[in-house]
Amino acid sequence: MRRTQVIDNSMDGALAVHVERALSDYLAGRHAGMAEMAPSFGSAVESLASFVLGGGKRIRPTFAWWGWRGAGGAGSGADAEAVLRAVSALELIQACALVHDDLMDDSAVRRGKPTVHVEFAARHRERGWLGTSERFGAAAAILLGDLALAWADDMYVSAALPPARRAAALVPWQAMRAEMLAGQYLDVLTQARGDESAEAALSVARMKTAAYTVERPLHMGAALAGADERVTGALRAFGADIGVAFQLRDDLLGMYGDTDVTGKPAGDDLREGKRTLLMSVGLRRADAAERAGDAAVLRSALGDENLDSATVERVRALLVDVGAVAEVEGRIGELTDSAMLALTGVELAEPAGEVLAGLAVSATKRAS
Amino acid sequence: MRRTQVIDNSMDGALAVHVERALSDYLAGRHAGMAEMAPSFGSAVESLASFVLGGGKRIRPTFAWWGWRGAGGAGSGADAEAVLRAVSALELIQACALVHDDLMDDSAVRRGKPTVHVEFAARHRERGWLGTSERFGAAAAILLGDLALAWADDMYVSAALPPARRAAALVPWQAMRAEMLAGQYLDVLTQARGDESAEAALSVARMKTAAYTVERPLHMGAALAGADERVTGALRAFGADIGVAFQLRDDLLGMYGDTDVTGKPAGDDLREGKRTLLMSVGLRRADAAERAGDAAVLRSALGDENLDSATVERVRALLVDVGAVAEVEGRIGELTDSAMLALTGVELAEPAGEVLAGLAVSATKRAS
Repeated sequence: MRRTQVIDNSMDGALAVHVERALSDYLAGRHAGMAEMAPSFGSAVESLASFVLGGGKRIRPTFAWWGWRGAGGAGSGADAEAVLRAVSALELIQACALVHDDLMDDSAVRRGKPTVHVEFAARHRERGWLGTSERFGAAAAILLGDLALAWADDMYVSAALPPARRAAALVPWQAMRAEMLAGQYLDVLTQARGDESAEAALSVARMKTAAYTVERPLHMGAALAGADERVTGALRAFGADIGVAFQLRDDLLGMYGDTDVTGKPAGDDLREGKRTLLMSVGLRRADAAERAGDAAVLRSALGDENLDSATVERVRALLVDVGAVAEVEGRIGELTDSAMLALTGVELAEPAGEVLAGLAVSATKRAS
Repeated sequence: MRRTQVIDNSMDGALAVHVERALSDYLAGRHAGMAEMAPSFGSAVESLASFVLGGGKRIRPTFAWWGWRGAGGAGSGADAEAVLRAVSALELIQACALVHDDLMDDSAVRRGKPTVHVEFAARHRERGWLGTSERFGAAAAILLGDLALAWADDMYVSAALPPARRAAALVPWQAMRAEMLAGQYLDVLTQARGDESAEAALSVARMKTAAYTVERPLHMGAALAGADERVTGALRAFGADIGVAFQLRDDLLGMYGDTDVTGKPAGDDLREGKRTLLMSVGLRRADAAERAGDAAVLRSALGDENLDSATVERVRALLVDVGAVAEVEGRIGELTDSAMLALTGVELAEPAGEVLAGLAVSATKRAS
């Protein structure tokens, strides 16, 4: 994520640092309470805290913050601190989403480290405990994800916001959590059904990424600042388009990204059978060009857990060759343009307009 | 759960019906929003709603309601309706706990019906979808449990409570969710470690059942009514003891209960390796009496997934024979007495005192 230059004494310039401070303060308080009550649960809570504080681009708090700033919210002072706390709570929703998603997908690695269920399974194995290590790891991941979700609400409600603003921001806050879960479910369902349609891929992208990651955080920031409908609408329209573009970039990185940079093995989406727009376009184009052999390679690779790296390489080359990569890149470009257009009709408080334009670029042109 | 006679036009007499009305209203509203946005997620939400509305003793809302009434809260009118909504939200926390717990334990049956992960795995299997049915079932259960937890907070916050009362009740609300998860984790950990101590069993009972099921709901009800520290303290002390007694009764029912009444196969706790106080006492007594063969039978039965019914029968007889059942029954009696004593020092608004005494009896002497 691009960092803007430090502007006066506001939190704008080192936002991720401030988000991490807010999370770290909040988690330290909750951890102390837990560790006193149940020391062995305290140690599990430490794993959750390390996970939350151990990385991530803080993209949801960032968009929420700039929604707040764009709608005229202050960059420092008591109100800004309260808003910082409220928007940082988004990272706890995301911790739940990631911990549970990694378990559902049985992913081994996240942010270059073992995933939570793998970490707890290893702990079980090392100590020679009873029962299966996998089941223990799964239980720990389910419960710590639940804890993160419960604490997200607790942290949000602990922000010292004016009641009317808190009430207004509850609308995006509640919608966002439901949309994230709906998006995750649709994602799993689309994979199970083997749905190859672009509609299915886009509908997952709209809910899971666009709404949850960009549109609703901006909506939340705008609501916290008491923005009117016009400003809120513009920010949401911008977020909806940038969010889909962000997901399309993510899909490309899942196939072509550098593992050292993304922290996720390339080809994992393919092995998991993720129905991305990239694959959908690739299949449609291979079918349309009557390249039956190529289409068969793509279809049989999707969801093949034992896929070897030569076949991953072949799929990569094919998707370029049939023009799927170019089509998705084109779509990202169009979405970025329409997002920028959505912002032109309203006056945002600077530097928010400039920063959001920068975020639009970095979210859709990033390498990790 | 005992029903008290209908008293004037208050909700006291048919509380479970009112709780179900509140839940049904809330879920219908959320379902409509989801079904419009993502029809296939709407159908998953229907499964969650059926689960929430399809049974359960509504024990947590009941204790919370009587905490409210005991501390002087009204039995009908606008405040009572708001409190009804807030306390009914406890059933959504419980829905998350049960859906996730059934997945962690891989239980097949709940309330006489297939558990959520089993229902979704069957749906996957019937339709011949891609991937494994178990993984699909697990994903659906994780996501629907998460949704229930998120909606618990949404429903709670939607209750039209006076701000000061809402703030006071947030203390037990937040503690309760963390204690439930801590209790679940300790339960899993105690099983994994093969910890036979009474301390471990009681510490799980204190957190998972006493705090989460009885003490904190009463605390929440008292806080909603603006109770002073003396009344709150008495209700919590009562709840802590009744809650542990409730768990000890549950453990006995898990071993000796009638499957048709409890809805759970007898011996399941044993097969899952649950470290109950009953088993801990049985092992201690068998060891102390130098009945090495009997102790070995108990130890090898605990956590044996393929346990046959003859061995379950043998374990039942042994636990009676070594005096473990009598000791646990004695403990339940003592806890019930000390709970009742805790209430004698304060004046509760009637009929709450009488009803809580009745609940203490029915929670600890029940057959299901």
